[in-house]
Amino acid sequence: MTLNLKTSTANIEHSIKLASGTVIPSYDIRYETYGKLNQDKSNAILICHALSGNHHAAGKYDNEDKYGWWDNMIGPGKPIDTDSLYVVCLNNIGGCHGSTGPNTKDKKTGKYFGMNFPIVTVSDWVNTQKSLMDYLRIPKWNFVIGGSLGGMQAMQWAFQFPTLIDNCIIIAAAPKLTAQNIAFNEVARQAIMKDPNWCGGDYLNQNKLPDKGLSLARMLGHITYLSDDSMKKKFGRDLRETELKFNYEVDFEIESYLRYQGEKFVSNFDANTYLLMTKSLDYFDPIKDFGDKLKTRLAKNKSNFLVISFTSDWRFPPKRSKEIVELLLDHKKDVSYAEIKSSGGHDAFLMENEDYFDVMKNFIVRSKCV
Amino acid sequence: MTLNLKTSTANIEHSIKLASGTVIPSYDIRYETYGKLNQDKSNAILICHALSGNHHAAGKYDNEDKYGWWDNMIGPGKPIDTDSLYVVCLNNIGGCHGSTGPNTKDKKTGKYFGMNFPIVTVSDWVNTQKSLMDYLRIPKWNFVIGGSLGGMQAMQWAFQFPTLIDNCIIIAAAPKLTAQNIAFNEVARQAIMKDPNWCGGDYLNQNKLPDKGLSLARMLGHITYLSDDSMKKKFGRDLRETELKFNYEVDFEIESYLRYQGEKFVSNFDANTYLLMTKSLDYFDPIKDFGDKLKTRLAKNKSNFLVISFTSDWRFPPKRSKEIVELLLDHKKDVSYAEIKSSGGHDAFLMENEDYFDVMKNFIVRSKCV
Repeated sequence: MTLNLKTSTANIEHSIKLASGTVIPSYDIRYETYGKLNQDKSNAILICHALSGNHHAAGKYDNEDKYGWWDNMIGPGKPIDTDSLYVVCLNNIGGCHGSTGPNTKDKKTGKYFGMNFPIVTVSDWVNTQKSLMDYLRIPKWNFVIGGSLGGMQAMQWAFQFPTLIDNCIIIAAAPKLTAQNIAFNEVARQAIMKDPNWCGGDYLNQNKLPDKGLSLARMLGHITYLSDDSMKKKFGRDLRETELKFNYEVDFEIESYLRYQGEKFVSNFDANTYLLMTKSLDYFDPIKDFGDKLKTRLAKNKSNFLVISFTSDWRFPPKRSKEIVELLLDHKKDVSYAEIKSSGGHDAFLMENEDYFDVMKNFIVRSKCV
Repeated sequence: MTLNLKTSTANIEHSIKLASGTVIPSYDIRYETYGKLNQDKSNAILICHALSGNHHAAGKYDNEDKYGWWDNMIGPGKPIDTDSLYVVCLNNIGGCHGSTGPNTKDKKTGKYFGMNFPIVTVSDWVNTQKSLMDYLRIPKWNFVIGGSLGGMQAMQWAFQFPTLIDNCIIIAAAPKLTAQNIAFNEVARQAIMKDPNWCGGDYLNQNKLPDKGLSLARMLGHITYLSDDSMKKKFGRDLRETELKFNYEVDFEIESYLRYQGEKFVSNFDANTYLLMTKSLDYFDPIKDFGDKLKTRLAKNKSNFLVISFTSDWRFPPKRSKEIVELLLDHKKDVSYAEIKSSGGHDAFLMENEDYFDVMKNFIVRSKCV
């Protein structure tokens, strides 16, 4: 069977009131689909992306060599099997890959939004994803699935639209960020905002790019995505050349890797989107936001939940995923939990791993409606 | 008894050949002493400072409110007891508090050294500390003591001048940096070097300061000095004001703390020194450097060793300190090891802690020559 990759843009012509109070009158959502929606529309899956992700999760475009960010997971015969499932993945608003966000133009002014684009929360994203769902005439998601910030969106779906999802898979996530998580995000933001080319966020209108700041933010991010162990295995203290240079050029392989990752990132990501995504992470705290209403919300939810963590993930370690499991168990939900042994760190959720893929496949086969 | 604080500068008028091959013809060492050298000169202690430390370890100057960085540890009746011990602490060369370094002027050109000041290794520092020892006519250190990068210098002393130290205390250190340690240093360096005001390191000659880059480096450093737990206890997710702001100003207390730490740091630290200190950390690997010679070096060493680590230190966690213990035990040295329970993270080595201070005091009382 084929992946049946289709890329489209949904023009959502009704307004949305954001958590901040700001109203967006209309917006575009760039999205991709794989597989086919069945006749009774019961096989639809929503994939939510993480900080630097986008709608292009699987397959590849004719003019590109690179596959989508979760191509190992999504496709014919893969754990998220497009032979039987219809998969939808979107670029969230505030993103920078085709959906309305800081790097798109405000129709009213003809200028790039930049910092005039409002901060969007996970709850706002779930509302926009619901609009896309209506646009696609999908009555219910058979699964909502995401890793990291994507896992937070999956979790939010279960609380916000409890009757519209059959199954929920939350991978490498946490119910809220710790002070340390916020601290890393803040340093990344400061790196961008202290770059003179950031221009108060107006760089696109001024034909500039805060490349230095954004690459620093990405370098820092990479440290938190990898585990100490995986860095050790991958780089150790290997020198780039045979001897120490006694200057400030690259000595060690790890330095070269980070610089490369930083430079690569700036060519396809928008700095203001990076700021927005990190704020959305910081603000995520659905238990606090729903408060007393969480109980009634979850009472309506009949989903099966799968929560997955990775042993070497120090950004959202297993104990943080267990907080989600405990919350769901406290509300008498059906929860499966898997702690996957991996040295891959936080990024393990994007990597091929037999145990991880088996857990995903088995849960999906057992729970899917088709 | 009084601390008997004295601050002086030693002009070392003979040249030193650095590990890089560069020769420095002469240099100044700013240093401080506490207590009194006894008649047989057997009560001298060398204190080695860490990345951002300097010679001012204890007491306070008449015109300042702030006490030295290890004032809780050094003084009359304190673990490093100046009633019986003569304590020497210096600002390492390449530093920025009075010793020759990037922020001092090259006598030949009249210009600030900046990036023309060579990279200095831990081994180079130990050689310059030996010169200060000769200058002060101290025949032997009763103790060499240091935490973090200072602990590495103490360790290096034991290998490099094995017969010149009676006791060695290595706190919160590691025998070499991991790829992750190097990665954090590299991001800090890039933050400084990407600041346009860094001017290729020539900022002092150009009347500029790379404040933004240096403050970023410090913010990042602070994340690695504190533990996840201590951040949680200290800040949690506490908001600075009552509500989320939905902008990019400070929302959470941790953000405010980091910004403050970054800003405070730039007023009394030199960016090029920061670069140099992090490179010195990265390069530290005495086991590799000494190779086969380590065995004969350590055979000559009759010191008692005390190695101390802190449970919540994730920069140089207990397992890294244990590598030092194992190395020393393999060479049949007399080693005491203490793993101190603390939530203080890497910075715990600077904090008051009953167990820690008892271990220090007991070891010093037991081992001192007076």
